Amino acid sequence: MSNSGYHVLSELETIQYVKKIPGLFSENALLICKELGDGNLNLVFRITEKGTSGKSIIIKQALPYARVVGESWPLTLDRSRIESDALMIQNILCPGLVPKVYLYDKEMSLTIMEDLSTHINMRKGLITRNQYPHFAKHIGTFLARTLFLTSDLALEPQYKKQKVVKFINLELCKITEDLVFTDPYYDATTNQFNPLMKEVIKEIWDHAELKLEITKLKERFLTHAQALIHGDLHTGSIMVTEKDTKVIDPEFAFYGPMGFDIGNVVANLLLNFCAHEGCSLDQKERLQYQDYLLNIVEEIWTIFEKEFRALWKGNESSFYASVQGYDDDYILRLLQDTLGYAGCEMMRRVIGLAHVPDLESIDDPKLRAKGERLALAIGQQLVLRRETVWTICDLTALVRYIKNREVDED
Amino acid sequence: MSNSGYHVLSELETIQYVKKIPGLFSENALLICKELGDGNLNLVFRITEKGTSGKSIIIKQALPYARVVGESWPLTLDRSRIESDALMIQNILCPGLVPKVYLYDKEMSLTIMEDLSTHINMRKGLITRNQYPHFAKHIGTFLARTLFLTSDLALEPQYKKQKVVKFINLELCKITEDLVFTDPYYDATTNQFNPLMKEVIKEIWDHAELKLEITKLKERFLTHAQALIHGDLHTGSIMVTEKDTKVIDPEFAFYGPMGFDIGNVVANLLLNFCAHEGCSLDQKERLQYQDYLLNIVEEIWTIFEKEFRALWKGNESSFYASVQGYDDDYILRLLQDTLGYAGCEMMRRVIGLAHVPDLESIDDPKLRAKGERLALAIGQQLVLRRETVWTICDLTALVRYIKNREVDED
Repeated sequence: MSNSGYHVLSELETIQYVKKIPGLFSENALLICKELGDGNLNLVFRITEKGTSGKSIIIKQALPYARVVGESWPLTLDRSRIESDALMIQNILCPGLVPKVYLYDKEMSLTIMEDLSTHINMRKGLITRNQYPHFAKHIGTFLARTLFLTSDLALEPQYKKQKVVKFINLELCKITEDLVFTDPYYDATTNQFNPLMKEVIKEIWDHAELKLEITKLKERFLTHAQALIHGDLHTGSIMVTEKDTKVIDPEFAFYGPMGFDIGNVVANLLLNFCAHEGCSLDQKERLQYQDYLLNIVEEIWTIFEKEFRALWKGNESSFYASVQGYDDDYILRLLQDTLGYAGCEMMRRVIGLAHVPDLESIDDPKLRAKGERLALAIGQQLVLRRETVWTICDLTALVRYIKNREVDED
Repeated sequence: MSNSGYHVLSELETIQYVKKIPGLFSENALLICKELGDGNLNLVFRITEKGTSGKSIIIKQALPYARVVGESWPLTLDRSRIESDALMIQNILCPGLVPKVYLYDKEMSLTIMEDLSTHINMRKGLITRNQYPHFAKHIGTFLARTLFLTSDLALEPQYKKQKVVKFINLELCKITEDLVFTDPYYDATTNQFNPLMKEVIKEIWDHAELKLEITKLKERFLTHAQALIHGDLHTGSIMVTEKDTKVIDPEFAFYGPMGFDIGNVVANLLLNFCAHEGCSLDQKERLQYQDYLLNIVEEIWTIFEKEFRALWKGNESSFYASVQGYDDDYILRLLQDTLGYAGCEMMRRVIGLAHVPDLESIDDPKLRAKGERLALAIGQQLVLRRETVWTICDLTALVRYIKNREVDED
């Protein structure tokens, strides 16, 4: 990759850059640029036209290192290509469910895309207990279409393998391999957790069966090139309004196990569920919202499965379509993978480097530990019992059971 | 890939070509070149020095089409790069167990390598009931070392993924996908089988559970980038003397499931086992050789497992090494994959396009059908019962059981 012309943009340079691109803004537009400062890895600029048009765009530029750590953690600029390519594919497969890409500049490692300032980050929405009546339908559809239509179920193997090569994502996969599947399961320096959780976490480090199952899930993450997955589909990668859903930030995209994406969505809803154990709401309101969250989990899977089966049936010419029972078998394995990866995500968000604001926003460490303990209990059981689960309701029943058990213990 | 200078060599041109390469033969050597004519896909020339030196080499040149079919089946010349790269890697991992590569010429898509005219094709050796006392040790070691040392068990994931890309092998994988996993399971035009087998084969085409399991094995072949496998490791890809073993022809190499390679070795020994049901030997001699074959199967796995575990233990710094029970779990899954892929290979060699001389050399179709029927019976049960097997002796016991059952039915 040639990036000889690459340099990090300032806000002023970004305006100059944008002005040179025909069709974005009128020639005499007065533009305001602000770097939003909320990226872990990248610069994110919003450019707004002053005046009544209200027109705005986002420019996301990759830095040659991880912003959250600094230049000591170099990262390839190529992730910018992966992100824009993934967005373009997702936009074809699920029009309207990802931001539109206006331009990708390889040399500058930047992507100009639709501004979503009318949307809020789904995680923030869940923390303030908003409800999103269309979210399950949108994300279930997004998952079914992006996963099915990039897999061997829909593509000729030869074509799919070319995509596997295009989306080899060495460095960002390594982040996941380390921070999700490795570091949380021993006393790694990257871990940072609530000191009150130390005893429970030590039990996890000593839990041989759990570590074996985590390793099998890691092996699958490393070897199972099933579909072009988003790779980082937590609720912070989803922007919502009451009516709309947009999935953003697919820079971790690669060919991996479908259940990793579905599991990440489920886990982050469950992490919010757990955080509610540590909040100071009255019990009724808390239980209602927790019920709402479990209902969305069920609804997401139900919609996902329905859409996935419809795509399967619509693909009658494929060899797979005629194999009796293959759809049921495939979908059951997806559900079990989903549980496994959801469990990994829940545990690493309590033990590892990157925590979630749902729990972190609870100031009192004792209250936070209540939610964290529940997250670890659910995460463990999702991993350990994933192969005993047959329907999505088995999952939500398991969550309710563990919650009641943990709460009784208090 | 640039192949602008590529042209198909004649025997005379091959001599001229070789003479230009320093270090192979002396300047005034009198060379004889013969195209051996036994390749399905390629030209294979042997160049011998006249006189007492007896020096000889092999030149293998890829054709831009499959030789066995003709120009109507175009094939990329890039398979020549894959073959020479795989040979070089295998030679580093298992010195002496593959032919030495002297030169790879990308432009001409040819590889100059060690001549093995002192060896015979293992399949021919088995057909004439030779015994190879070192074979199990050699092939078990080859499998353990090539598979373990190219997998995530030994390599950094980032490095391994670069190898995955290098060994993407679109066209040759497609041949396997079609001829092993797809065409034999319906009435495809590529199939060609003994007309006496028609009823049994129709039962297979109607066997829903079997087709589901074949599809799952195909899915794994398409998605499971576990190790750099040989990809075509039947007994015709192995050259032997009583003391030596050389694995040849890795042009189907790619990152796939380890069990595919081990299964192909096992299946081709079992196909010879089955062919003995149709031979006219006296019973005692036949049973003795069949016992010998099952003993080698057990010995190969035992040596493979021992060597694989030794590599596992030797790799103490890896994350895996410390995960209790992961080795047992991994190896059991390998054994079960081995059975599944062995079953696929046995069935496709009876139903599909490419048969094995072990069975084809039986002239009488009725006698041949005895062997073929046993091969299909064993093949099916290996696929269907693979997850009930825990040791290699469960496999050989299953083979004996099916043989006794089938023979009783006669």
